[in-house]
Amino acid sequence: MADVILVINAGSSSIKFSAFDVEGSRLDLVTRGQVEGLFSSPHFVAYNADGEKAGEHNWGEGAQLDHAGAIAHLGAFLRGHEAGHHLIGVGHRVVHGGAHFTKPVLANAQVLDELDKLTPLAPLHQPHNLKPIRIIAERNPDLPQVACFDTAFHASQTTLAQAFALPESITKNGVRRYGFHGLSYEYIASVLPEVAPAAARGRTVVAHLGNGASLCALDAGKSVASTMGFTAVDGLMMGTRCGNLDPGVILYMFDELGMNAREIEDLLYRGSGLLGVSGVSGDMRALLASQDERARFAIDLYVYRIGRELGSMSAALQGLDAVVFTAGIGEHSKEIRQRVCEQAAWWGIEFDPAANGRGDACISKPSSKVSAWVIPTNEELMIARHTQALI
Amino acid sequence: MADVILVINAGSSSIKFSAFDVEGSRLDLVTRGQVEGLFSSPHFVAYNADGEKAGEHNWGEGAQLDHAGAIAHLGAFLRGHEAGHHLIGVGHRVVHGGAHFTKPVLANAQVLDELDKLTPLAPLHQPHNLKPIRIIAERNPDLPQVACFDTAFHASQTTLAQAFALPESITKNGVRRYGFHGLSYEYIASVLPEVAPAAARGRTVVAHLGNGASLCALDAGKSVASTMGFTAVDGLMMGTRCGNLDPGVILYMFDELGMNAREIEDLLYRGSGLLGVSGVSGDMRALLASQDERARFAIDLYVYRIGRELGSMSAALQGLDAVVFTAGIGEHSKEIRQRVCEQAAWWGIEFDPAANGRGDACISKPSSKVSAWVIPTNEELMIARHTQALI
Repeated sequence: MADVILVINAGSSSIKFSAFDVEGSRLDLVTRGQVEGLFSSPHFVAYNADGEKAGEHNWGEGAQLDHAGAIAHLGAFLRGHEAGHHLIGVGHRVVHGGAHFTKPVLANAQVLDELDKLTPLAPLHQPHNLKPIRIIAERNPDLPQVACFDTAFHASQTTLAQAFALPESITKNGVRRYGFHGLSYEYIASVLPEVAPAAARGRTVVAHLGNGASLCALDAGKSVASTMGFTAVDGLMMGTRCGNLDPGVILYMFDELGMNAREIEDLLYRGSGLLGVSGVSGDMRALLASQDERARFAIDLYVYRIGRELGSMSAALQGLDAVVFTAGIGEHSKEIRQRVCEQAAWWGIEFDPAANGRGDACISKPSSKVSAWVIPTNEELMIARHTQALI
Repeated sequence: MADVILVINAGSSSIKFSAFDVEGSRLDLVTRGQVEGLFSSPHFVAYNADGEKAGEHNWGEGAQLDHAGAIAHLGAFLRGHEAGHHLIGVGHRVVHGGAHFTKPVLANAQVLDELDKLTPLAPLHQPHNLKPIRIIAERNPDLPQVACFDTAFHASQTTLAQAFALPESITKNGVRRYGFHGLSYEYIASVLPEVAPAAARGRTVVAHLGNGASLCALDAGKSVASTMGFTAVDGLMMGTRCGNLDPGVILYMFDELGMNAREIEDLLYRGSGLLGVSGVSGDMRALLASQDERARFAIDLYVYRIGRELGSMSAALQGLDAVVFTAGIGEHSKEIRQRVCEQAAWWGIEFDPAANGRGDACISKPSSKVSAWVIPTNEELMIARHTQALI
């Protein structure tokens, strides 16, 4: 009877999941899927490891399925799909570990209370990340659950890299750079020694370019800097988030445009970035297919700002040996990879268009001073590994 | 009878001035000084070109001297000090030229009305910059006056360098990166061909490190990027300003700390930076002399962030040939120059401590791949030159 580890990534209106069979030290994905549209139009779908649909359910428009209902449905699905298997632990993606939780942790009641206190640092995510842990603990008090933090991998950064130039009256509340996408960067760092040994030992910037996007500067596999700061809105331009912004602009929005905090938040998180600049779409594929002049400008700006932040990351590393692309856009957009690499040619990246076109892992020429790579990320596997290690 | 050009830099509570004799194409400083403490404890002082005190006046604590009164006093002083000279024009430092005014301009009534409209972009400075122009025009309607903008030098930047990733509904109001300290950078660019010809032709980052601080990336003397953005609070850490800040921190200040826009503005402009981080002083000299651990951390952070932004500027330039230090800290703090250069050694700066100690213009070794320089700025002379050219 095989052991199974379940991985859960819960948001305000969706729960994503993956299940891994434990084969000694190996973890094999057996099913993955999600419940989307909680509280509005819930829909469940699950796939096998080979991508075939393994289950689906619609609750219908307007159905008030909550997180508990979604998890009950997921449990029933897994008992059927994984019949004869034994669930030995659940790993959860939790956005914020604050200053204290710099490693994954067994999520007992005391830990959950501590994690609740971090909600002001990530009010839109932290409560939804924690909710399924409590729901599962109520039903299965003896099932070990592990909280894995998006911030933890960046705990290796110096206090200088983490600091804002603000007074202690503000910073004492935990206002500093945390950095996010940590589970993605940790996964990349874990496979680098095999895929690109020199990059694993050297000064490497990883570009996690998904709907959210950030860069991480890895010095011999340790995070020394990241473009994301206190929140996930800072740094690079993203699908719908503005990234780096003069703080004076926000005061201007208040004073001159008469916007309130909720309107500003909505604008910066959901109305800016590729979507806001193009006025067309926050999806890079749609923009790349568009002839619209503003769509082109949005892509130009996206690439330009990666270049500028690549400079800042390289300064944190005191040099640059390799660049790694990952996540949705990083893994799938040949054009964006090409444009970022060509813009960074002055660093010593000799881009290899043929390798990029073939989907090779290495997309720079052998003679390239700075190498360039494409490595698919796998945050779920990283969470499963942490869970396996802790239970 | 020599011609004289007067230069005025007016703020909310002070008016700084310089007067230059016009000798053909040469401009010779004859006197400079200021009226400080308007509306509270007004004090006038003026110096000769060689630094000797040439005039002084105290109105006494609580005297309500306004801008008009200060200018009347200044006029009387100049008529005495410059007896026999002929005032041919006045040049004014005006912080904001917006998108339209990309060069100095004769400040007639129509231009002043246009410049008034830019007040929302710089509410703390623009009205005070414009006030003396109107006061002087009323008394001397035929005296040519020239407005010189801190933003104008950066008009050469691409739209990519100027853009925030915000939607048109916001950017149509003029929300973009303008960059400031433009008169300082323009002056440096004007003397570079003589002082450092290779830097003038190449990719040079100028560090204007005063109480306000920014970097400017010069490509063959043209601004291609600057760390200051929409306002003068963005970019580098400054004496009392925070510089670069995750926009999410401001929403946190509203939502979780219950601060209002004025409190946040006060904190970011007057309670952050060196002062806020050290808790001791916003004056670099005081921090360098302090044994306080937080004073040291504030200096470390100041230097670290210059290094990170130097990377971003170099990316905008696609390389780096030279670094120039200017303004208060840049011209006078050997220690900060040394630390910035040593931190940037990986770029190829071979720092020359002896030259730095002697106060040489060139503070890198002859073999240095990237050269480093100290060049005193002179914004007043730049304004006088523009005034001379336009009248």
